[in-house]
Amino acid sequence: MSEAEVKPGRRSIGAQRNPASEEAILKAAEAVLLENGLSGFSIEAVARRARAGKPTIYRWWPSKAALLLDVYHNHKQTHFSYADKGNVRDDLIAYLSGLFTVWRNPATGALFRSVVAEAQADPDTAAALAAYMADRRCQSSEIVKKAQARGEVRADADPEIVTELLASFAWSRLLTDRLNVNDGDIVAAVDMVLAGIAVRAA
Amino acid sequence: MSEAEVKPGRRSIGAQRNPASEEAILKAAEAVLLENGLSGFSIEAVARRARAGKPTIYRWWPSKAALLLDVYHNHKQTHFSYADKGNVRDDLIAYLSGLFTVWRNPATGALFRSVVAEAQADPDTAAALAAYMADRRCQSSEIVKKAQARGEVRADADPEIVTELLASFAWSRLLTDRLNVNDGDIVAAVDMVLAGIAVRAA
Repeated sequence: MSEAEVKPGRRSIGAQRNPASEEAILKAAEAVLLENGLSGFSIEAVARRARAGKPTIYRWWPSKAALLLDVYHNHKQTHFSYADKGNVRDDLIAYLSGLFTVWRNPATGALFRSVVAEAQADPDTAAALAAYMADRRCQSSEIVKKAQARGEVRADADPEIVTELLASFAWSRLLTDRLNVNDGDIVAAVDMVLAGIAVRAA
Repeated sequence: MSEAEVKPGRRSIGAQRNPASEEAILKAAEAVLLENGLSGFSIEAVARRARAGKPTIYRWWPSKAALLLDVYHNHKQTHFSYADKGNVRDDLIAYLSGLFTVWRNPATGALFRSVVAEAQADPDTAAALAAYMADRRCQSSEIVKKAQARGEVRADADPEIVTELLASFAWSRLLTDRLNVNDGDIVAAVDMVLAGIAVRAA
């Protein structure tokens, strides 16, 4: 990670930034999650594993949820990339089915579900999730912006709302245990947003 | 409520059905929720208030979440109805903005958020939410089926996925504290699904 990159939900640490120990903490967090599971994941356990002080961790991640979401995001990036397929339909299908695939992994799905659940009662978790999602909306909307530049998508469509609609569909499927209902629903959702459902005037 | 109606998530009780005490339990549940809040809501407290036995309550509502969702649904029905406006755009805008309005009520929004959160870890709550949502999808899809009958919506559009896409958008806004971002987003989401975002061949 370059010095210029600042991940969402993470405090700016200015001159104290130390990518090496930051990376070590992230690796320790991954290991703790793998060994102890979600219920055994804590800043304390990560600090012990990384031989770091808790203040060091809190300097970079303001909450347990912020650290969890970084581990989650690293895992997601390692296993799936939304390569530009050159046309918006394939790009959006890859985007939406990517979310389904990531969340069908029981550990990854459970992690994200637990963060969403905890965000409903815990302000720190809500803040970490909000920061993460703002970053995701910004990134994902690039798919639509590129399609607008290619002339595939109308200029008046709000790129963030397009991908938010599709991501929200995946959210509600995840949160109600319906990720495996019917893969055709993924394509159906994308085609609805692309072509609309209204009968067109002849 | 007629004898023929059976709400989702509620066990069939055959000959033991007793609408009067069922109604009394629902009213007691509403009162307990109003007085004690979500954290003080329990089957025990409802039983005490209704002077009913816990087994009587469990006969009709298999879980605390099933009872909570019935209270929630009653409240929703009392305050908002999705009257048929005669055209699909107005109907879908009323449907989606209705969800936003219901959830902007802090108590109602908090109730639904707590059920979704608890469903991520508790199987009984997950079952109650799944049953409730299956019923909602079935009911809401009528908006689209009517529009198909009027020739406004293409026959090949899946009615449940149309309203699921819009409801999911409201879910993710609720669960990330973004219900108040911009009311124009409600109309934008409906218009995307209706008209699509793809540039049409001239």
